[in-house]
Amino acid sequence: MNGKMQGVTLVADWDPKPGFKLGSKDINGRQTYLGSQVWRNPCLEIREYDIPTPGSNEILLEVKACGICGSDVHMSQADKDGYIYYPGLTGFPSILGHEFSGVVVEAGKNAFDKRTNKPFKGGERVTSEEMLWCGHCRPCADGQPNHCERLDEVGFNVNGAYTKYLLLPSRTVWSLEPLAERYSEEDIFLAGSLVEPTSVAYNAVIESGGGIRPGDRVVILGGGPVGIAACAILTRAGASKVIISEPQEERVKLALKLGADYAINPLKENFADRVLEITEGMGADLFMEATGLPELVYPGIERVIWEGRTLNSTVVVTARAEAKMPVTGEVLQVRRARIIGAQGHSGHGNFPRVIDCMASGMNMTPMITKKVSLEELPENIIRLQTDRKECKITYVAGKN
Amino acid sequence: MNGKMQGVTLVADWDPKPGFKLGSKDINGRQTYLGSQVWRNPCLEIREYDIPTPGSNEILLEVKACGICGSDVHMSQADKDGYIYYPGLTGFPSILGHEFSGVVVEAGKNAFDKRTNKPFKGGERVTSEEMLWCGHCRPCADGQPNHCERLDEVGFNVNGAYTKYLLLPSRTVWSLEPLAERYSEEDIFLAGSLVEPTSVAYNAVIESGGGIRPGDRVVILGGGPVGIAACAILTRAGASKVIISEPQEERVKLALKLGADYAINPLKENFADRVLEITEGMGADLFMEATGLPELVYPGIERVIWEGRTLNSTVVVTARAEAKMPVTGEVLQVRRARIIGAQGHSGHGNFPRVIDCMASGMNMTPMITKKVSLEELPENIIRLQTDRKECKITYVAGKN
Amino acid sequence: MNGKMQGVTLVADWDPKPGFKLGSKDINGRQTYLGSQVWRNPCLEIREYDIPTPGSNEILLEVKACGICGSDVHMSQADKDGYIYYPGLTGFPSILGHEFSGVVVEAGKNAFDKRTNKPFKGGERVTSEEMLWCGHCRPCADGQPNHCERLDEVGFNVNGAYTKYLLLPSRTVWSLEPLAERYSEEDIFLAGSLVEPTSVAYNAVIESGGGIRPGDRVVILGGGPVGIAACAILTRAGASKVIISEPQEERVKLALKLGADYAINPLKENFADRVLEITEGMGADLFMEATGLPELVYPGIERVIWEGRTLNSTVVVTARAEAKMPVTGEVLQVRRARIIGAQGHSGHGNFPRVIDCMASGMNMTPMITKKVSLEELPENIIRLQTDRKECKITYVAGKN
Amino acid sequence: MNGKMQGVTLVADWDPKPGFKLGSKDINGRQTYLGSQVWRNPCLEIREYDIPTPGSNEILLEVKACGICGSDVHMSQADKDGYIYYPGLTGFPSILGHEFSGVVVEAGKNAFDKRTNKPFKGGERVTSEEMLWCGHCRPCADGQPNHCERLDEVGFNVNGAYTKYLLLPSRTVWSLEPLAERYSEEDIFLAGSLVEPTSVAYNAVIESGGGIRPGDRVVILGGGPVGIAACAILTRAGASKVIISEPQEERVKLALKLGADYAINPLKENFADRVLEITEGMGADLFMEATGLPELVYPGIERVIWEGRTLNSTVVVTARAEAKMPVTGEVLQVRRARIIGAQGHSGHGNFPRVIDCMASGMNMTPMITKKVSLEELPENIIRLQTDRKECKITYVAGKN
Repeated sequence: MNGKMQGVTLVADWDPKPGFKLGSKDINGRQTYLGSQVWRNPCLEIREYDIPTPGSNEILLEVKACGICGSDVHMSQADKDGYIYYPGLTGFPSILGHEFSGVVVEAGKNAFDKRTNKPFKGGERVTSEEMLWCGHCRPCADGQPNHCERLDEVGFNVNGAYTKYLLLPSRTVWSLEPLAERYSEEDIFLAGSLVEPTSVAYNAVIESGGGIRPGDRVVILGGGPVGIAACAILTRAGASKVIISEPQEERVKLALKLGADYAINPLKENFADRVLEITEGMGADLFMEATGLPELVYPGIERVIWEGRTLNSTVVVTARAEAKMPVTGEVLQVRRARIIGAQGHSGHGNFPRVIDCMASGMNMTPMITKKVSLEELPENIIRLQTDRKECKITYVAGKN
Repeated sequence: MNGKMQGVTLVADWDPKPGFKLGSKDINGRQTYLGSQVWRNPCLEIREYDIPTPGSNEILLEVKACGICGSDVHMSQADKDGYIYYPGLTGFPSILGHEFSGVVVEAGKNAFDKRTNKPFKGGERVTSEEMLWCGHCRPCADGQPNHCERLDEVGFNVNGAYTKYLLLPSRTVWSLEPLAERYSEEDIFLAGSLVEPTSVAYNAVIESGGGIRPGDRVVILGGGPVGIAACAILTRAGASKVIISEPQEERVKLALKLGADYAINPLKENFADRVLEITEGMGADLFMEATGLPELVYPGIERVIWEGRTLNSTVVVTARAEAKMPVTGEVLQVRRARIIGAQGHSGHGNFPRVIDCMASGMNMTPMITKKVSLEELPENIIRLQTDRKECKITYVAGKN
Repeated sequence: MNGKMQGVTLVADWDPKPGFKLGSKDINGRQTYLGSQVWRNPCLEIREYDIPTPGSNEILLEVKACGICGSDVHMSQADKDGYIYYPGLTGFPSILGHEFSGVVVEAGKNAFDKRTNKPFKGGERVTSEEMLWCGHCRPCADGQPNHCERLDEVGFNVNGAYTKYLLLPSRTVWSLEPLAERYSEEDIFLAGSLVEPTSVAYNAVIESGGGIRPGDRVVILGGGPVGIAACAILTRAGASKVIISEPQEERVKLALKLGADYAINPLKENFADRVLEITEGMGADLFMEATGLPELVYPGIERVIWEGRTLNSTVVVTARAEAKMPVTGEVLQVRRARIIGAQGHSGHGNFPRVIDCMASGMNMTPMITKKVSLEELPENIIRLQTDRKECKITYVAGKN
Repeated sequence: MNGKMQGVTLVADWDPKPGFKLGSKDINGRQTYLGSQVWRNPCLEIREYDIPTPGSNEILLEVKACGICGSDVHMSQADKDGYIYYPGLTGFPSILGHEFSGVVVEAGKNAFDKRTNKPFKGGERVTSEEMLWCGHCRPCADGQPNHCERLDEVGFNVNGAYTKYLLLPSRTVWSLEPLAERYSEEDIFLAGSLVEPTSVAYNAVIESGGGIRPGDRVVILGGGPVGIAACAILTRAGASKVIISEPQEERVKLALKLGADYAINPLKENFADRVLEITEGMGADLFMEATGLPELVYPGIERVIWEGRTLNSTVVVTARAEAKMPVTGEVLQVRRARIIGAQGHSGHGNFPRVIDCMASGMNMTPMITKKVSLEELPENIIRLQTDRKECKITYVAGKN
C-alpha cells in the first residue's frame, strides 16, 4: 500500500554507561537487551513513515486500538542521569505500542490465518503477541517461545502500533472473530487490545503457575492491569475466594468489578492477618506477586503459608524486580509449597484461550478507563509517570 | 443415645447363580462384590432399629436429607430371573441411602472434625463420603482411596441414611458450615445431600480427567445427575462452551439451568455434526461419557476428535458399562487424545473443594426436583425404575 | 557447492483411486496426505541431482549414515493393485531416507546452531528431525510441532538422505558433538542416525505417555526398532521390570541386549498370564502398543490391567493401525487406567535429551545389524519387505 | 509374646524455655512439637522393657537392622544450655531408632499385608515408614500423609527400633520379600534399613520435585545419606550428569560409588563455575539443597540458573533450616524456574517403588560403613556428633 502515516516514536541517545559491554544479541548504536544501561534522553516524537509492505509470511495490520503499557512509560522516562527506566530489550528510534488490535488489510501469500488454516483474507479482525519469537532457537524448538533466545518485540525494537499500519509475521497473529457474537464492533477492538496483558496474567497463573482447581482460594498482590486480569481469570477458573491486596482505591474498585471477592489495603491492614481471617485460617492455594516489591510482600505471603492450613500453595512471581525475597525453605517444606517465576504471554495456547474466555463472557473492557487519539498519546504516556488512578489508557483509531 | 428408629431396608435372598464363587472379600450369606450374581427377590421394607452408639473414631449423625441414587433403584429392581440389577458391592439386609447430610449429635473422643482439627462438637452440620476406604491397604496408603481394596459402602453393605440416625467414621465426614453464609438452614442440608454426586463428577473431570484450562470446550454425554453436575463444575472451571448431549427434555432444561450452554438431542440430530458446528470445527478438549452406552456414543466422540482441530482431547469414562468401545488408536495418535476411566468421589481434596464451590455460588439445589418423607421413599425408589423425568428425589427429614 | 550427486529416488505414478479427492494440503500430481490412495507402481531408482545450495535459514549436510525405516519399505512396496502400502504424506519423485546423520558443510547466515546459539560452522556433526514443522500454524504456535498442520517430511515429500548432500532448515537440526567424548567417529554417525527412531520412542513413552517413576513396571508389545528403543529408554528411566512381547527371536535378543529384562513369545505363551506371573500379580504401569495389531493385543493388555493390582496404568499407542481396539470402559475405571495416542518425535526437548542419553551411555548402535552402501540400498529396502530378522539396515557413506 | 527386652532409650528433662506454650498436639511433661524448646539434659540409657503385644491392626516386629540417623544424634546432643538440638516432634523417654527392618513375628487379625492383601503371616521380612500418619485428618484424607496433622513418629515420640521387638500399625509396614531374589539374607535387612532414608530422597526428587526426564542434568548439594541416596535415584532415573557438591572426601567417594558422575568441593572450587563448566553452559534441570545451609549455597544455585541455558529448573529444598535464602524473583522468571519444599517419605507409592528399585539393582548397602551391636549404639550415636566420615552406622541384631 502506498502512502504515509504518523507514528509515535521513541527517540533516545545511544550512550552506554561505563563498563557496558555489547551482549551477543546487541547491535551497536541500535539495539540492546539492557535498555537502562544504554539509552539516554528519551523523547516521544510523532514522525512520518512510509506505509510498509508485507513479505511472504507477513500481514499488514490497520491498527484500531492500542493500550498504553507501563513499559511504554518506563521507556519514555529518564532517571536523574537521563537514562531510561526500562531495563530490557530496546532498539530506538521505534514506534511504540504493543497491546493492540486491528484489521488485516494485506497479506503475503504464505501468511496463514490460524483460525482457518488458510491464507489470511483482508478484513479479518485480529490481535497479535508482541513477542516475535524466532521459531528456530532451542527454547522455541522445545516449545518455550517466552524464552526465545533471538527475540524481537513489537513496540520495543520493532515498530509498534501507535500508528496507522503495522507489519506482523502471521505466526503471532490471532483472530478476534470469535468476539463478534457478543461484542460491538468497537468493543471487539477494545477487548482485542487487552488480549496481550490478559495473556500475561493467564500465562502466569494458568500455564506457569499450574492453574487452580475449582474451589481453591487465591491472593493477588498488586492491582495493576496484570493483577486485575489475574482476578478475572481466576474467578473464571472457579476460585472460591479471590483476594486482591492493593492500596490504590480506583484499582481496588476495578479488581472487585472484574472478579475479586475481597480487598485488602496493605498499608492500612495487616496483610497476613486479613488473608487468614478471610479464609478462616486456610490461607491460599495460589499467590500472585504483581507488586514489584517482593522483598516487602514476601514475608506476609510466607506467614500465610506457614500459619494457613493449605498445602501445596504456589507463589507465582510475575512482576520484574531485582530485590531479593527472604525465603525460608522450612516453610516451603512444611506446607509443600513452591515459588515459580513467570514471564511472557506466548505459546501454550494462551492467546486463543484468552480470546475464547472473552468470547464467552469474560469482559475485560472496563479496564480501559480512558480513550485517546494518536496525537494525545505522548502526553498521556508522560502523565502515567505519576498518575496511578487510570488503569488502561487506550489509543483508539479515528478518535478525535 | 437410647431409642428406636425406622429405616428403609433392602432385603433380598442370598441365592448365587450357578458358577458363582465367593471372592476374597465376600462373606457367605451376607456380602458380595458381585451383587447381581447373588441377590434375588429384592424388597424394600421399613424396619425398626436401635439407635446406634458411636465408637471412639465415630460420630452419630442425625439425618436431615438424603437423595435417591440410581444405584438404590438398581438394588431394588429385579430382572426376569429375580436377580437385582446392581452389579457391585452389596450386603443385605441394609438400610439404603448414601447421598446425605445431617447434624452431628454425638461423637467418640477420637472423632476429629477436619474443619477445626479438633474433636467433633455436637451441632456441626456435615455430609460424608459413602465410600468407607479402609486407610490401610495399598491403594489407601498410596493416596488412592477410590480404589481401596477393603472398601465398605454406606447404604450398600453398611447401614445408610434412609433413617433418623447413622454411624460414620470421622475420616469420611466433611463439614457443611462453609455453606451457612449463603444458604438457608434447609438449603444447607439439601445442598449437602448433593455433595456426594457432585464429587463423583468433580473427581471424574477435575481429578481423573485433569481438569480444563479457562476457555476450553467440553461435551457431556448423558444428562443424569452426574452429567448435570459436570456441566456445573466445568462452567465453573471456565469452559467457553459446555455442550450437553441428552434426549430427555427435563434433563436438558436442568443442564442448561446449571451451566450448559448448548444442548444436543442425539436421537434427533447428528451428535458429531452438531458438536463440530457449535465449536466451529474445533471439537472439544474434554468429553465425559455419562450415558452408560459407550458402544453407541464412542463413534460420535471419535469422529469429533478426528475431524475437530483440537489436540490433547480427553475422554473421561464415568458411567459403568460392560460394553466395548470400538477405539481407533490412530485417531488418538493423530490428535494426541486420551481415554481415561474415573470412579469414586473420595480423596484428592474433592469433597472440601465441592463444598467450597457451593459456598461461593455453585448452587446445585435445582437438581432436587421432588422432596419426600421416609415413608414415601420405597414407592419413589420403585417409581424411578421407569420415570426419567425427575432428576433428584430427596428424602427430607421432618417432611410429612 | 557445485557438482552432482546420486540419490536413491522413489518414483511412482499419480493414479488416484476412484473417489479420491484432493485434500487441503494436497497438490495435484505431486503430493498427497493419503499415499496409498494415490501412488501406483513404485520403483526405486538411483538418479543424479545437482548438489543444492542452502538458503538463509538452511544448512547443507553431507550425509554420513542413514537407516532404512519401515516406511521406506512400505513406500516402495505395491499391493495387488499396484498401490503403495504407505498411507501417509508423500510426494514423488523424492529421494528417500529420513534417519540420518552427517556433517554441516555450508550454512546460510541465519542458520543458527541450537547448541551454541550462534550461526552454524562447517564441521559440526549433526542429525535432524525428519518432520519439518512449519512453525506458523496453530499447533506449532501452541507447542505441538508433531501435529503441525502444514508439515513437510524429509524423505517423504522433500528430498531425503539416501544421497551425498541434503538441505535442512536449521530449526530441526541438532548437534551430535556431545557424543564425541564417548563414541568413535564412525559411531557418532551411527548413533546419530538412530536419534530419530529413538526419539519416536522417547516422545511416546516419556512425553506423551507421561514417563514412569523409578521402580515402575513396563511392557512393550512389539520388538521393532521403536519398541526396542522404548526398552532402552525405560530401563534408563528406572523401570524395575521391562518386559518385551515379541515372537521373532532376533528381535527379542536385541531387546534383551538393549535393556529388556524379560521376554514373552505371544505366539507360544499366554501374554497376560506371563505378565502377571513375572510381575507377581502387579501388572504394569506402562504398556506400549508397537505391534500394529491393536485389535489382537489389546484384550491381553486389558486383562493384565483388570487382574493386576497396579493403578494408573497407561497404554501408549504408537504403531499406526486402522483396526479398532475393543475397550471396556469399566476396566479403565476400576484401575484408573488410560489409553493415549502418540506420534512424532519433534518438540518437547525430545531430540536433545535422546542425544544426552546416548552421550551418557545409552548406546543404541547394536540396533544396526547391517551396513550397506548407497548402491546396495534399493535391494535392501526391497529385502525388508519379507525379512524380519534384521533390525536396522543402515547406509554408511563411503562404504564399498 | 512374654519376656523382656533391652532398648536404647532417650531420657531428658521436661524443662520448657521461658515463653514456651503448649501447642495443640503437645502433652504436658510428655510430648512436644518443638523439642529443642523443651527437653534438657538428654541421656541415652539402655533400659529393660516388656515385649509388647500387637493390637488388632498391629504387627510385632523382630528388629534385624536399624541405622543411626542424624536426628538421633541431635536428640542426644545438648547445646550450651543443656537443651537438645533436635527441633521437632519428641516424647521422652522413648526407645530411639527409626530406619529399620525385621521379621514379623506376630500380627493382629486385622493387620493386613499390603503385598498380599491378606493378613500378615509370621516370617514376612519388612520395613516401615517411621511417620505414623493418622489416616483421619484433612491432609491424610487428601492424600498428603507427610503433612499429617496428628502425626506420631517411631523412635521420636513412640518406641523405636533400637531394641529387639517393636509394635507397628500394619498400614505403614512394607514387605521386603521382593529383595529376596537378589540379596543375601543379611543384605535384605541392611538394604531394608535404608528404605526409609532412600524414600526421603525419593519423595523429594521424584514426588515433590516432579522427577526428571532421561537425559536431564542434576546437582545435589550435600553428601549426607539423603543427598547420596538422591544421587542413586537420579542416576537410576536417567540423568545424563549427576553432580555432587560436598567438601568431605569420604562422602564424595560414596556418592560417586552410588551414582554421581562428577564431584565439586565447594570449599576449594567455585560451585557455579564448575557446574557451568561440567554442563557446558547448560546448568541443571534439578537442584537438591541437602546441606542445611541454604543461605550459603542458594546464591551459587541462582547463578547457575541465571547463566545456564536450561529452562524449567527445579530447586528442591530437603534439608531443614531456619535461615533465609536470598531469592531473586527475576531469575526464576527469566528461566521459568521454581523452588519447592519437600519433607517426609510416606504416601505416593514412595516406599514400594524404592523397594522395587532396590530389588532390581539399586544397591544402597555401601552406604552402611559400620555395623554395631545394641550395646555399642549409645557410644556411636555420641561419636556422630563430631565424626562426619561415616555415612551410615547401623545396628545389626545378633552382632557381638
